[in-house]
Amino acid sequence: MRSHALPEVHPQHRLATISDGDIEVPVTAISLSDSPDGTPNDDVLVYRTAGPGSEPEVGLPPTRAEWIASRGDIGTYAGRPRTLSDDGRSAVRRGEASRAWRGGRRDPVRGLDGRTVTQLHYARRGEITAEMRYVALREGCSAELVRQEVAAGRAIIPANVNHPESEPMIIGRAFLTKINANIGNSAVTSSIAEEVEKLTWATRWGADTVMDLSTGDDIHTTREWILRNSPVPIGTVPIYQALEKVDGDAAALTWDVFRDTVIEQCEQGVDYMTIHAGVRLAYVPLTAERVTGIVSRGGSIMAGWCLAHHEESFLYTHFDELCEIFARYDVAFSLGDGLRPGSIADANDEAQLAELRTLGELTQRAWEHDVQVMVEGPGHVPLHLVRENVELEQDWCHGAPFYTLGPLVTDIAPGYDHITSAIGAATIAQFGTAMLCYVTPKEHLGLPNRDDVKTGVITYKIAAHAADLAKGHPGARVRDDALSKARFEFRWHDQFALSLDPETAMAFHDETLPAEPAKTAHFCSMCGPKFCSMRISQDIRDAYGSAAEQRAVVEAGFAEKSRQFVELGSSVYVSDEAVDAVEVVEVVR
Amino acid sequence: MRSHALPEVHPQHRLATISDGDIEVPVTAISLSDSPDGTPNDDVLVYRTAGPGSEPEVGLPPTRAEWIASRGDIGTYAGRPRTLSDDGRSAVRRGEASRAWRGGRRDPVRGLDGRTVTQLHYARRGEITAEMRYVALREGCSAELVRQEVAAGRAIIPANVNHPESEPMIIGRAFLTKINANIGNSAVTSSIAEEVEKLTWATRWGADTVMDLSTGDDIHTTREWILRNSPVPIGTVPIYQALEKVDGDAAALTWDVFRDTVIEQCEQGVDYMTIHAGVRLAYVPLTAERVTGIVSRGGSIMAGWCLAHHEESFLYTHFDELCEIFARYDVAFSLGDGLRPGSIADANDEAQLAELRTLGELTQRAWEHDVQVMVEGPGHVPLHLVRENVELEQDWCHGAPFYTLGPLVTDIAPGYDHITSAIGAATIAQFGTAMLCYVTPKEHLGLPNRDDVKTGVITYKIAAHAADLAKGHPGARVRDDALSKARFEFRWHDQFALSLDPETAMAFHDETLPAEPAKTAHFCSMCGPKFCSMRISQDIRDAYGSAAEQRAVVEAGFAEKSRQFVELGSSVYVSDEAVDAVEVVEVVR
Repeated sequence: MRSHALPEVHPQHRLATISDGDIEVPVTAISLSDSPDGTPNDDVLVYRTAGPGSEPEVGLPPTRAEWIASRGDIGTYAGRPRTLSDDGRSAVRRGEASRAWRGGRRDPVRGLDGRTVTQLHYARRGEITAEMRYVALREGCSAELVRQEVAAGRAIIPANVNHPESEPMIIGRAFLTKINANIGNSAVTSSIAEEVEKLTWATRWGADTVMDLSTGDDIHTTREWILRNSPVPIGTVPIYQALEKVDGDAAALTWDVFRDTVIEQCEQGVDYMTIHAGVRLAYVPLTAERVTGIVSRGGSIMAGWCLAHHEESFLYTHFDELCEIFARYDVAFSLGDGLRPGSIADANDEAQLAELRTLGELTQRAWEHDVQVMVEGPGHVPLHLVRENVELEQDWCHGAPFYTLGPLVTDIAPGYDHITSAIGAATIAQFGTAMLCYVTPKEHLGLPNRDDVKTGVITYKIAAHAADLAKGHPGARVRDDALSKARFEFRWHDQFALSLDPETAMAFHDETLPAEPAKTAHFCSMCGPKFCSMRISQDIRDAYGSAAEQRAVVEAGFAEKSRQFVELGSSVYVSDEAVDAVEVVEVVR
Repeated sequence: MRSHALPEVHPQHRLATISDGDIEVPVTAISLSDSPDGTPNDDVLVYRTAGPGSEPEVGLPPTRAEWIASRGDIGTYAGRPRTLSDDGRSAVRRGEASRAWRGGRRDPVRGLDGRTVTQLHYARRGEITAEMRYVALREGCSAELVRQEVAAGRAIIPANVNHPESEPMIIGRAFLTKINANIGNSAVTSSIAEEVEKLTWATRWGADTVMDLSTGDDIHTTREWILRNSPVPIGTVPIYQALEKVDGDAAALTWDVFRDTVIEQCEQGVDYMTIHAGVRLAYVPLTAERVTGIVSRGGSIMAGWCLAHHEESFLYTHFDELCEIFARYDVAFSLGDGLRPGSIADANDEAQLAELRTLGELTQRAWEHDVQVMVEGPGHVPLHLVRENVELEQDWCHGAPFYTLGPLVTDIAPGYDHITSAIGAATIAQFGTAMLCYVTPKEHLGLPNRDDVKTGVITYKIAAHAADLAKGHPGARVRDDALSKARFEFRWHDQFALSLDPETAMAFHDETLPAEPAKTAHFCSMCGPKFCSMRISQDIRDAYGSAAEQRAVVEAGFAEKSRQFVELGSSVYVSDEAVDAVEVVEVVR
């Protein structure tokens, strides 16, 4: 199957595995050359979201199926009958897709009557599942920590029992910050393989989850192929499909149409669903004086419905029924922030905060059903109000993982909103947001193309990683240190291989100095051979490294030494005598 | 002269002026169309760095010359004789440039014997200069505030008396966050006009100052043309040129060569100079165990010199002489951080902090001579250590403005270091850094081209503006609010015009919906006409806006209303009765 996947992002990258008994987790191993002094450099193993690769018409193997079945609490059933409206009236791919499929066909499964099959349920009972062990291996922590965080509701493992192809991953503030990439069908795409390729492209660059935000025709079939090929959890916003089923007329939506759509998606294997149940009738007028009103599509659909019917949202009134459904498939709530601010002016306003309080209430109701929950957040927020967002969410929503869209820290840079939002994203993640929904350069302007998706994912890997470094996540700095060492030692190929985007790094380098010898030369294009700070610095290290008295200085401890220098005052050359006088203390690094 | 400048960045932009008596400040006026309901929208006036535009062979008018002369403390003199080594042995443009020049020729000026002509000197004497009034008008504050901040050393107005073409600007934490763009000559450029064009390009997108980091041949002539055409302060790192004069051999540098180079640049009109006087001999060994040693070019040159001579840095030992020179031209120090960390691993280490303490000592020494000072900062710093950098600098350097390079918050994304550093830059500016040195996507990899310079400048305008919003700078939100209002009202051309980069915003929009009607349509490409959250939101506003009871709700105050809703609990449709029962309170906005 490997031959059908995109190639690794760099020749020095390869698929490897780490294992713990019967659990095997794929990782990307980055091989490095020796240092100039002959010291070998260990492979750097990095978290891998791309999975093993698959042929779109066959899908991934259902590796999790055995774990799911072994718990003895699920059963196969006939499933909801397919209807024409699942794909829309003008669907064209259904037949073609059916004929092309060469993978297995499975009836859906769900929890047996009265049984809850969620990871939260198991965790609360004290059970460490295979999924939790898998996650622990990926994160480099104990399975018991994973269980505890899931049991407390502070983390979720989105893992629908009908998506056995997925590689378990965890979303929670105690773990690596995750990122989501949005994809959706478009009128110009001609094949299911191309839809799957978008997924593969996003996970290749590091998307931890993917949301399928398709609208229009072939929506069911597109989602089916994505799920069967996805090693990462898939999220959706089911109100989009429900709206299609009523021809785009928000007022015509009903709980029955919505419920049917949710079950359709549960049976396909969607791992988490955005539900805008916090957009309550009473909050709609709070948006009337905003600069940008309601900017969430789901939020505006539900607000439109409430307005048309003059009734409380059916998502709110039927929330417990939704919980009962989710509990039988282990679908996680992503409680949508339908009233999130769409501009700096509207940030942290009453509409947003009123909804957030309701999301806190809904979190507790979901937890009563042992259903996993994360909570969505803004949007557009100036930098000084970012921290308040995550602190209020953690407080009001009882520690449920926060999942934010950016936030953008200014409105004035359309075309660069991956950057305006990465600033907010890194900051909000530093203070405890668990997952970041990416923003591409096309935000507010148009539909992202392949390059935009890649730029969005890489930009958000940067924001997430910056937060992991700031939170002191164990092991987060390994890649930085390896890359910086490679940079200092002029191991150019290693520097590229360790980059989030090796091909761009190499292309930029080659624009100025394309020749292969330049990649081994001990200088670079910025300063040229005569004038290289890294080389001068290496000379200094060589000189001081060989001088016994200077080693003694270093061994004496940096902190102590600095104090000595200050005390020595303005005369200040540290003579051998002065150095000898420095008290030898342990070097703390 | 206008015809020789680059055109405005958008057809709705035009050069305008605001004035206060005899002081006139150019601004960019952005004209807007009416709202859909017919309400006119005022022009948005934005800070302008591009000046009025100039013809490279003529230069800008010396608008400040009269102010400088009127103070009666300067005199013209013959100036230092030009030598062949000023431009390097292989210089080719000197003659050509001399023949091409059609602007005025001036002898240099400097403070009369015993006179100090710095803005700091005037401010401390209680004098409000024309430059201070100009700056106050630009910043929208009182001239007395400007004087106070300059007098206290918390802000600088870089304004060499030999650069009368410059439009005064201020660098200080109480004012708008500024950004610097670096430019430098390159072997492939064929004319002086092209060098000037780099300057014009950077200021067109918003660079507040430009550093000319040229090395190699024609360095003096290139700088001359840049200065004569620059409406923004120009900074340099004179050690680069001094090193050229000794054929790149750091050990051959002497105080005399350096001093001569500094005077050469003072006479040309350089407004601030990076001086790495904090790289003291005693600190060099502190870098020996670093992952990336010394990454500053100036720092490594001086460390190399100290190492070769086993002597204290001549920049440190001759610092007072430098101050005496700077005081006669009003050149500001930019105290270089030659030992800044070049990797996450080296952030906030003893080498960095030892140097910073010395920069604090040098700040005070410069202030004793009434010479303006800012202090340079890192570099590479993980997000949780960023704030400490600015707090220590403000403390140890007695409030002198901080001027940082990023910092980059991770090492793993070469090719995207404009983004890794914008995250750090926005954060460090939020906490009080006054100016940010831009980083382009080519950082660590190669020489920035025209597109890279633009991307770097726009990215840093975002970071600086995000900080200004977070600091609550008066007026900072005007442009955000205007753009968001235009977005909500589907005034697409206004949205582009208000963007930092209108052409990119429009190009991205047109990729999906190129037709002109799409720019006035009440929907966009993301959702299409049937499914537009902004439109639905507008519908809601229309509906609620016309309903008297909902207006009453809004008038009752958002905070109070939210509380009411929570109290109403789960029944929660707000009937007319419930609304009537809400106590009418003043709306606090």
